[in-house]
Amino acid sequence: MEKYLDNINSPEDIKKLSNDKLNALCLELRDFLVDNVSKTGGHIASNLGVVELTVALHYAFNCPMDKIVWDVGHQSYVHKIFTGRKNEMSTLRQYKGLSGFPKRDESIYDVFDTGHSSTSISAAIGIARARDLKSEKYEVVAVIGDGALTGGMAFEALNDAGRSNTKLIVILNDNEMSISPNVGGLSTYLGKIRTEPRYISTKKDVEKIIDHIPFGSKGIKKFIKRTKDGIKKMVVTTGMLFEELGFTYMGPIDGHNIDELIEVFNKSKNINGPLLIHVKTIKGKGYKFAEERPNDFHGVSAFNIETGKSLNKSSIPSCSDVFGNKLCEIAEKDKSVVAITAAMTDGTGLKNFSKKFPKRLFDVGIAEQHAVTMAAGLAANGVIPVVTLYSSFLQRAYDQVIHDVAMQNLHVVFAIDRAGIVGNDGETHQGVFDSAFLCQIPNIAVMVPTDYRELENMLEYAIKLHNGPICIRYPRGSFKSEIDSSDTMVQLGRGTIVKEGSDLTIIASGKMVKIAIDVRDILKDKSIDSEIINLRFLKPLDEELILKSALKTKKVVIIDETVKDGSVALRIDALFPNNIQVLFKTLPDKFIKQGSIDELLKENDLNAESIAFDIKNKLF
Amino acid sequence: MEKYLDNINSPEDIKKLSNDKLNALCLELRDFLVDNVSKTGGHIASNLGVVELTVALHYAFNCPMDKIVWDVGHQSYVHKIFTGRKNEMSTLRQYKGLSGFPKRDESIYDVFDTGHSSTSISAAIGIARARDLKSEKYEVVAVIGDGALTGGMAFEALNDAGRSNTKLIVILNDNEMSISPNVGGLSTYLGKIRTEPRYISTKKDVEKIIDHIPFGSKGIKKFIKRTKDGIKKMVVTTGMLFEELGFTYMGPIDGHNIDELIEVFNKSKNINGPLLIHVKTIKGKGYKFAEERPNDFHGVSAFNIETGKSLNKSSIPSCSDVFGNKLCEIAEKDKSVVAITAAMTDGTGLKNFSKKFPKRLFDVGIAEQHAVTMAAGLAANGVIPVVTLYSSFLQRAYDQVIHDVAMQNLHVVFAIDRAGIVGNDGETHQGVFDSAFLCQIPNIAVMVPTDYRELENMLEYAIKLHNGPICIRYPRGSFKSEIDSSDTMVQLGRGTIVKEGSDLTIIASGKMVKIAIDVRDILKDKSIDSEIINLRFLKPLDEELILKSALKTKKVVIIDETVKDGSVALRIDALFPNNIQVLFKTLPDKFIKQGSIDELLKENDLNAESIAFDIKNKLF
Repeated sequence: MEKYLDNINSPEDIKKLSNDKLNALCLELRDFLVDNVSKTGGHIASNLGVVELTVALHYAFNCPMDKIVWDVGHQSYVHKIFTGRKNEMSTLRQYKGLSGFPKRDESIYDVFDTGHSSTSISAAIGIARARDLKSEKYEVVAVIGDGALTGGMAFEALNDAGRSNTKLIVILNDNEMSISPNVGGLSTYLGKIRTEPRYISTKKDVEKIIDHIPFGSKGIKKFIKRTKDGIKKMVVTTGMLFEELGFTYMGPIDGHNIDELIEVFNKSKNINGPLLIHVKTIKGKGYKFAEERPNDFHGVSAFNIETGKSLNKSSIPSCSDVFGNKLCEIAEKDKSVVAITAAMTDGTGLKNFSKKFPKRLFDVGIAEQHAVTMAAGLAANGVIPVVTLYSSFLQRAYDQVIHDVAMQNLHVVFAIDRAGIVGNDGETHQGVFDSAFLCQIPNIAVMVPTDYRELENMLEYAIKLHNGPICIRYPRGSFKSEIDSSDTMVQLGRGTIVKEGSDLTIIASGKMVKIAIDVRDILKDKSIDSEIINLRFLKPLDEELILKSALKTKKVVIIDETVKDGSVALRIDALFPNNIQVLFKTLPDKFIKQGSIDELLKENDLNAESIAFDIKNKLF
Repeated sequence: MEKYLDNINSPEDIKKLSNDKLNALCLELRDFLVDNVSKTGGHIASNLGVVELTVALHYAFNCPMDKIVWDVGHQSYVHKIFTGRKNEMSTLRQYKGLSGFPKRDESIYDVFDTGHSSTSISAAIGIARARDLKSEKYEVVAVIGDGALTGGMAFEALNDAGRSNTKLIVILNDNEMSISPNVGGLSTYLGKIRTEPRYISTKKDVEKIIDHIPFGSKGIKKFIKRTKDGIKKMVVTTGMLFEELGFTYMGPIDGHNIDELIEVFNKSKNINGPLLIHVKTIKGKGYKFAEERPNDFHGVSAFNIETGKSLNKSSIPSCSDVFGNKLCEIAEKDKSVVAITAAMTDGTGLKNFSKKFPKRLFDVGIAEQHAVTMAAGLAANGVIPVVTLYSSFLQRAYDQVIHDVAMQNLHVVFAIDRAGIVGNDGETHQGVFDSAFLCQIPNIAVMVPTDYRELENMLEYAIKLHNGPICIRYPRGSFKSEIDSSDTMVQLGRGTIVKEGSDLTIIASGKMVKIAIDVRDILKDKSIDSEIINLRFLKPLDEELILKSALKTKKVVIIDETVKDGSVALRIDALFPNNIQVLFKTLPDKFIKQGSIDELLKENDLNAESIAFDIKNKLF
């Protein structure tokens, strides 16, 4: 029984509780979160870290009139619980259930959709400027982690907001972590502030203090006169990095002390212009395993609360694991190979690499743009960088792929994880755009493995034999079995015939090849004999192989887990003479919400049954 | 006669000159630059600003062993002159001539290609890390303007490099300008440093000074004890923003004082780890008109040296002008319309808008990512933002278009200038990728006007009638005449028939429609009667209109100024049944270098004659 939580149905209900009850509520919330996420899976550590922060925000501010923008948004579960979605939390991240991120179409309390990092200050200053243009009055608050602050666009936003005179509250949720421990100069800087004596100050407070300093020493006096600002900065500890950009700085504050948080939030309403409140929190707070290993408890599948162990014990390694191990093997022999990650060492399978070759693993922070151009710099000077990013995050570095890598035709290997439908993270994380945005770039090659052997061979090809920019895109999760048993070595622009047939050509790549095999089996029962082409390369295309098969069967179906307008299907179709019948099986022109990968493929008619049905209907 | 310059054929020759001769050389260089660029056109003001800086760099460092990365690269003319390209400067930015930017394939002294802003620190730290991995010894220098520093990826790089312990020299060329005067918190901050007493310091110097401070006052003593760092920061003036990120800061230094520059550069070699040297320069220095109006003399066409006036006086307004004026007209009536620029108020035609509606024009700095997400924030709160960016710079904000605008289906208008081939800026600036990377995004609409009337109508449609993300992409320069005289109002996904015909359908958009008309005229002489479709919308496509015409003529040519794999041509082709013959006239799968737009269209067979020839050959 959750005594207090039971009675919370909107943020108004929180305001009715006294301070000690708020603390009791926090305990209940932690139990609720652990209990719930242990069943649904999700982002647990980050949510446990912001329990008091969220309670204090909804206590001090008046939502939905006041607007809170959650950076990344995976820490918005308590906010969801408070804003009418408590009873739906069991559907979190499930097909047709609640999203794991804020969604405007889910609640009036969600003012801006997030999912990727570092967008909240930009969105919030936009919302605040709109407020001012319309002469409205309310608070706009961005809640951003110190990890997200390493993303360049957060800095762009601080730079713009800093001199805007626009009332805006940025809450820096400093837990010293991205998914992994945070990196870079900014992190060291924040670390320094955290350990210095706490001093809550506004510019006014500071000026008061300066006025009371006894100016005894002549030597000091000279310095002080010269740079009155200097003293100011000394006093406000080192929040001055933000002060220099134009923000008033308050903090650091204990993010698990509700009284203090509420006091500061109430004070913040009276400060004009951009304000940054520095809040220290502990990721995973209150749940032993998450607190000890916040990295492992960042995003989890269902787990046993008592042991902290995942319930989905799979003995099959993931694509990320296989990639990481193969990369270690190659790097062992070739010292010119290095790896780059944007704050995702574990998620991208580089954990072993980081242990074996700590000096050859560059974790650049949540900074995909820099990751790619830094790789270009390495490649321009004779090192072979492997840039490992999730497909949807590579979108962040599109210009850098074109402008810094492809245009100079540099030998940079892109290991693109989470390509295709990713499942429960939903539309912000689906890797369904990369094949179009990459394949149109001159000089670039794009490979897709169908199984682990191909993944390994392709990585070896990309590093050892290729020269120039090259991508390997592979899906979230595991390949279930070996698919393409053809012995052909990986060769630039060469596909393979996985199964021979005479009535129909099925063209696919990656995990769609397995689906093509299932389709073939279904069609065989209907006496249709299908040939299956495994493209291997989305670019360059194996035009010869494709044309030969198509001219033989005269009927072609192209399966591609991409929006049609960006799919390889269109490029293949353009190769054909007029006597070939073509059927496209691609994703529709819409954003794809969360669910299991199988559910989403089925919903979009990309499961074997639907494809076979369509083929039978339209081509035979 | 250039007495000294005549004898400079490599950086080695500079080292032979005494200091007073170096100053004389700078005068000669300024004359050479003005004389040369007055004929070729190009970036004059930025190059005049770095004459002494470049001389000092090549004097103090040993290129090509030492590596200099030029951010943006439009300020590399003096570097080009020094590195064996003096006699080719007359071909600058011309077809088959020297590029206006550093190019690795042009010279061994160009270590990294640039063109877009804010990449140099990323590239340089990559180059430096490769050096260290290979145990080589030399200096790596990034030269970056204060404008470029507002781009988020520069911050990402500072953050990463700051704690890397990697020897790297970043030269901050602070002239208080992007193309327009610089904006934001960082700019205010740098302004403050500029006006403070000059103090060159390394961390060591500072510590020495601290040791000599007479600690007389007890009050001060307490403060100093608590934060010894604080005093350090006070002394190094405010270079501490960089110091906090882990850089040693030196400066500010007079960027037109060669002796001082050389002294500091020599000193810099003995400092370990990342170092930032803050150099103050005057954009346009030494040429009256450029110094007075650096904004107007950022990028220029050929001009009269005596008067500073452009030689290409065209009375026809540019697309940017027409866009800007129409936007003013709309904004006059609708107060919810605002404009956003990323440091390009003038270049994107927003000069008048900025004067008329200063509070509704947001110049966010060179920060395309933030620009787009800030726009999403405005739109989420009921304001209609018009984001004006050049096509090739929109690549920087690709994720933000998908993740922050399209996914929430927000009403953001993208005014995409410099779409298609742009001419003399060359491959980094060609706007040839946007149509593919935009059209694959769900919810988005993409329009292309053929003439000014359409541009104005489309802008009106986008702002007043549409709801959701919508783009208008228009070319660099001018439309020469009215093309599409069909009276149809702009309607979502509706194209027009510009000319009727029965033998062939020519499908085009934007300025390609004019070329289609020329093709039609040529073909008419060969008794081929062409119908011309003006697409107006690249997305959604007017499938009905296209199919109707194609089914009538049975022969279709699609002209698109885009790489084929990303072109609308493939999407149109996929609509057709098997009895239609299709010819693609698109750009090849390669990066397109500089030249005039006409030269480049001709080179790529996209001029009317080549297209007509191909049609005759392949379809008739």
